[in-house]
Amino acid sequence: MSAPNRNTLWGRVIADELAAAGVSSAVLSPGSRSTPLTVAISDHDGIETFSILDERSAAFFALGRARRTGEPTAVVCTSGTAAANYHPAVIEASQSRVPLLLLTADRPPELSDSGANQTVDQEKLYGDAVRWYRTLPEPEPRDRKLRSLRTTVDRAVGETTGVPAGPVHLNCPFRKPLEPVAVEGDVPEDLAERAPLAVEGRDGPFVERTAGRPTLAEGGVEDVAAALEEADRGLLVAGPADAPALDAAAVADLAAATGFPILADPLSGLRFGDHLDRDGVTVCGGYDSYLAGASEWPDPEVVLRVGASPTSKVLRHYLRDHAARQFVVDPAGGWREAEFTATDHLVADPSRLAAGLAERIDGDAPGSAADYRERFAAAERDYWDLIDDARADETFEGQVLATVAERVPDPATVFVSNSMPVRDLDRFGRPRSADLTVLGNRGASGIDGITSTALGAGSATDDPLVLVTGDLAYYHDSNGLLSIARCGVDATIVLVNNDGGGIFHILPIEDFDPPFTEQFRTPHGLDFEPTADLYGLAFQRVRPDGFADAFAESRAMDGTQVVEVVFDGESSHRSREAIHQQAVGLTESSG
Amino acid sequence: MSAPNRNTLWGRVIADELAAAGVSSAVLSPGSRSTPLTVAISDHDGIETFSILDERSAAFFALGRARRTGEPTAVVCTSGTAAANYHPAVIEASQSRVPLLLLTADRPPELSDSGANQTVDQEKLYGDAVRWYRTLPEPEPRDRKLRSLRTTVDRAVGETTGVPAGPVHLNCPFRKPLEPVAVEGDVPEDLAERAPLAVEGRDGPFVERTAGRPTLAEGGVEDVAAALEEADRGLLVAGPADAPALDAAAVADLAAATGFPILADPLSGLRFGDHLDRDGVTVCGGYDSYLAGASEWPDPEVVLRVGASPTSKVLRHYLRDHAARQFVVDPAGGWREAEFTATDHLVADPSRLAAGLAERIDGDAPGSAADYRERFAAAERDYWDLIDDARADETFEGQVLATVAERVPDPATVFVSNSMPVRDLDRFGRPRSADLTVLGNRGASGIDGITSTALGAGSATDDPLVLVTGDLAYYHDSNGLLSIARCGVDATIVLVNNDGGGIFHILPIEDFDPPFTEQFRTPHGLDFEPTADLYGLAFQRVRPDGFADAFAESRAMDGTQVVEVVFDGESSHRSREAIHQQAVGLTESSG
Repeated sequence: MSAPNRNTLWGRVIADELAAAGVSSAVLSPGSRSTPLTVAISDHDGIETFSILDERSAAFFALGRARRTGEPTAVVCTSGTAAANYHPAVIEASQSRVPLLLLTADRPPELSDSGANQTVDQEKLYGDAVRWYRTLPEPEPRDRKLRSLRTTVDRAVGETTGVPAGPVHLNCPFRKPLEPVAVEGDVPEDLAERAPLAVEGRDGPFVERTAGRPTLAEGGVEDVAAALEEADRGLLVAGPADAPALDAAAVADLAAATGFPILADPLSGLRFGDHLDRDGVTVCGGYDSYLAGASEWPDPEVVLRVGASPTSKVLRHYLRDHAARQFVVDPAGGWREAEFTATDHLVADPSRLAAGLAERIDGDAPGSAADYRERFAAAERDYWDLIDDARADETFEGQVLATVAERVPDPATVFVSNSMPVRDLDRFGRPRSADLTVLGNRGASGIDGITSTALGAGSATDDPLVLVTGDLAYYHDSNGLLSIARCGVDATIVLVNNDGGGIFHILPIEDFDPPFTEQFRTPHGLDFEPTADLYGLAFQRVRPDGFADAFAESRAMDGTQVVEVVFDGESSHRSREAIHQQAVGLTESSG
Repeated sequence: MSAPNRNTLWGRVIADELAAAGVSSAVLSPGSRSTPLTVAISDHDGIETFSILDERSAAFFALGRARRTGEPTAVVCTSGTAAANYHPAVIEASQSRVPLLLLTADRPPELSDSGANQTVDQEKLYGDAVRWYRTLPEPEPRDRKLRSLRTTVDRAVGETTGVPAGPVHLNCPFRKPLEPVAVEGDVPEDLAERAPLAVEGRDGPFVERTAGRPTLAEGGVEDVAAALEEADRGLLVAGPADAPALDAAAVADLAAATGFPILADPLSGLRFGDHLDRDGVTVCGGYDSYLAGASEWPDPEVVLRVGASPTSKVLRHYLRDHAARQFVVDPAGGWREAEFTATDHLVADPSRLAAGLAERIDGDAPGSAADYRERFAAAERDYWDLIDDARADETFEGQVLATVAERVPDPATVFVSNSMPVRDLDRFGRPRSADLTVLGNRGASGIDGITSTALGAGSATDDPLVLVTGDLAYYHDSNGLLSIARCGVDATIVLVNNDGGGIFHILPIEDFDPPFTEQFRTPHGLDFEPTADLYGLAFQRVRPDGFADAFAESRAMDGTQVVEVVFDGESSHRSREAIHQQAVGLTESSG
C-alpha cells in the first residue's frame, strides 16, 4: 500500500481496517474535510457505499441498515454542523442498541477555537450517547501511529457490537492537502518495508476480537427454571428486540416447555414467524386491548420479560398491577422497566437463557398452565374476530396495519413509524406464520428520520420493503426519499394521512382549543402528491375501502409506490376508541 | 395568576418571566411533553409564536429571527430526539453569537435511564456549545422554587445576550398531567396571597439585568489611537458582524479620521449603507480579487480588525503576509484570527472603541494615508468596471449576486447561503449606499437550515426578504419552505442551481474521478419545480441573461417566488476563475 501523501495513507489504513473488522457498508455525505476518508472508503472493494446529501437522513439510513443486519455500518461526514445532524440518529442508535460507527472529519488541532471557518468543537459531540469516543491523532506515516490506528479502528468496530451494541464516534482531524495529490517525501518510500504490519495490516482484522456474552451460572439458570416450573400461571413477554435478533425457536421451546403464552410486541421478532406453527405455542398480539378488561382474570404468578419495554401501555400497566414475580432479562444489565415493579433482574443473553431454561424444564407443563394459556388463546380468537368485523368501518385507521400485517408478502421487511403506526401494528397486526422482519425506531420513538431508516433497512436485503408512516413523519424526513433514486432502494410506502398530529386526539389537550388546533393538532394541509414528481415515485391516494387492493397492486409494480390513505384524525380516534371498548367488554364478560 | 395544576402554573410563570425579560417571540414544535410550555407561551399576549413541525428547521428559524433582531428568541420542543434536532442551529448560534433560548421538555427524573419511552439523556445535550445550561427542578407550587424559577429564566435570557451572545439551554422536566386539567388541591388556593412575588412576579423582569461591555481604559485607547495616527498606511478590516450590530457611523468616523479604507465583508454591516456617502470614506468590496495581485503594493503598517474572520481567504492571506501590526478587536475576548499573525488583541466593544478612537484622532490624516486609500479606491473602480463587463458572460455565476446587490430594493434583508453565494457576494457585490441587512450562517458555515434561517430573519421586519441559495442548501432544508405558509413570511428565493456541489470544482479533488462525480460533485438531478406545488410558491426557471428581469418582476409580486437560475458547475467555475485572473492582472499591472 503506497500513498501519495500521509492523509491518503491514513484514509486507506482506516478503510482497510474497517473492512477487515467487518464493516461492509458506509454512508457518505459530500464534503471537503472528509476527502481522505471518502476517497479511501469509496475505493475499497470490500465496502459498499451510499451517497446521501442530508447528514440527518444519512445517519438514519445507516441506522436502518445496521438495525436490519445487526452489523456495524459506518457514516462519514465533513466537519462542522454536518456532524451535529447525526445527533438524532445517534441517540436512537444508543437507545435501541444499534451498531453505528460515526466518522466525522475535523480540522487540525491548531485551528480549534481559532475563528477558522467551519471549525467547531467536535470533541465528545454526542456526549454519553456513544459507547466509545476518540479523536484520532494527526495523520503521520509512523509505524506506531499506524498500528495504533488499526487497533483503534478494530476497537471502535468492536464496541459498536458490544453488549449493549450502539454508536461509536471517531473524530478524524486532517490537515491539507486532503486529496490524493503527490507530496514529495511525505510518505517515506521504504515505509511499507520498515513497517509492513502497520502499513499492510494483517490477513483479517489487525486484532481479532472474541467477546463473550453474559450467561448465568448453572445454578442461576436452575433457580429461574424452578420458579417457572412451580408457577400455575406464567407469561413470556417479549418487548422490542435488540441486535442480535432473539432466537425465536429458543423462546418457542421455552413456551412449549412451560405452557406459557408469548405476549409478543410487534418489534420483538416473535409476533410473526414459523414458530407460530409449533404445537403448544400461543403467540398473542391483542393484549393491548383485552388486557385492559382483564382485572378479574387470575393473576400471573411469574413473568419472564425479554427485550425493551413493550410498546403497549396496557400491557405494562397490567404487569405492574398483576404480576407477582417479574424477571427482567437484559444482556447489557439495563433496567428497562419503568413501572418499577420487577422483582428479579437477570443480566444474561436472552436467547441463550431461553434455550437453557427450555432444556431444564421437563416440558410436562401443569394443566393449570395450559388452562391459563387457553384463556389467552380464546381472548385472541374473540379479539381477532372483532377486528375482522371492524375493518369494514371506513373511519377505522387501524385497518391499514391490520391489512399490511395480513397481506404483506412472505418474506418482507416492514418498517413502522412512530407514533400511531407502531401502536396500530401492536393492536391490529395479527400474529402470522410468515418471515416478516418488523422494525421501528422505538429507542427514542422520534418521528424524525423514519423514511431514511426504513430505506436503510430495505437496502440490506432483497426482501420487499413496506414502510407505514404518518403524514408528519413523511414530511419530517421527506429528504430521505432521495435515497430511493440515489441508493437504489424500492419500497411500498403506506402514508396514513390525517393531516397533522392525530395522536394528540388521544391526549387530554384535545379539550383545550386554543391552543389544541394550532399548536398540537397542527394541520399542515400539505398535498403530498408533488413529492412523487420531486423524487420519482408513483403516488396514489385511496379511500380506506380501496386500500387493500391498492396495497396488493403496489407489490406487483416496479419502483416505489406511495399509497396514501386519508383519514380524519378526530373520527379516526373515535372509532379506534370504540373498538377498544368493545374488546375490553369482551374480556370483562369472559372474566 | 391561578392555575388548575402545578405544571400549568410552572409554564405560566416561565412564559410570564420570558416576556418580562425581553423574549417577544418563540418557535414551538408540536409535542406532548412540552404541553405546559406550549400552552402558556401560546397563551401569552406578549410573545409572538410560530409553529414549525421539523425541529431542525424550527431552531434555524429562531436563529434567523434572533440574528436579524439581536434579541433572544425561544424555541420549545418535546423530549427525545426532537431536542437533538436543534443541535446544528445551536452550534451555529454559538459560533456566530446569536441569542437563542432552548427550552426542551423532559420526562421526570425518576424515569431517566429506566427504559421508559421517549426518554433520553438530555443533560448537557449541547455540550460546550451553550453559554449556560440548567435542568429545572421539578415543578412545585412553592414560594422559593417559583422565585428561583423566575430568577433562572431571567438569568437564562440574560446569558443569551451576554458577551458573547449565544445559545442557552433550559431542560424542563414535567410529570403528568401535562394539560391544564384541574387537579384538586395541587395548587393551594391561597398561594398567590402567601407568595405574591413568586406567583405574580414584578412589573417588568423579576431581576433587572444591567450588563457592561468591555471598554478599554483611557490610556489603552490613546495607545491604539497613536499607533493608527503614526501609520502612513493603514486598513480597517470588518469581518462578519456579531449582534449587536456594529455602529457603522462610528467606524466611518474612524475611517474619515485616519484616512484608512474599510475592507468590508458582505456580512460586516459595512458593505452597504449610507456611510458610503460620507466624504473621506472608501468602502472596498473587491479585495478578494485584486489583493491577490497586490504583493508589489506597499505593505500596510497597521490594520485594525473587527468582527469574525473575513470570508475572503485572499484577504486573510494578504494580512498574514503583509500586515506589520494587526489589532484584532473582540468584545468577548475571542481570538478569531486563524492565520496567527495578529500582534495586538483588544478585548473591547468595537463600536465604542471606533467612536473613542475617532474622537482622539485629529482627522488631519497624513497625505500618505490618503494616497494609500486612493490606491484602493482606484483598484475598486477598475475592478467594478471589469465585473460590469463580465456580467454579459452567460456562464458567469457571479452575475447573480452582482445583480442582487445592485437591484435589491432599499431597504431589504438579504440572506446568502454557504458555500458559493456568500463568496460570490463577497467578490461581486458592489458596495452601495442602501439600507441592506446582509446575513448568512457564517459561524459554522453549514448548508443546513439556510432557508429556515432566512425566513426567520424575514419574519422580524416588513423589509423585503431575498434569499440566495444553492441547490444543495435548497434541498437540505426544503422542509423550511413550509414556514412560508405557516409563519406568514414571503421572500424572493434565488436558487442558483448547478446540480450538486459546484464548490468542489475549486478544489483539487476535481482531478480524481472516481470518486469526484459520485462522492463530491454528487449531481442529484432534482427538478425543484414540484417544491412550488408542495409549498404553494411561484416558481420560474430562467437563463442567466433573463435573471435581472425576473428578479425585478418577482419584487413586484405578492407571495413567495423562487427564481431558479441554472448553471453548469464546471464552466461556471472556469469563468469565475478567468475573471479572477483578469482582476489579479489589473492589480499587478497597477503595482
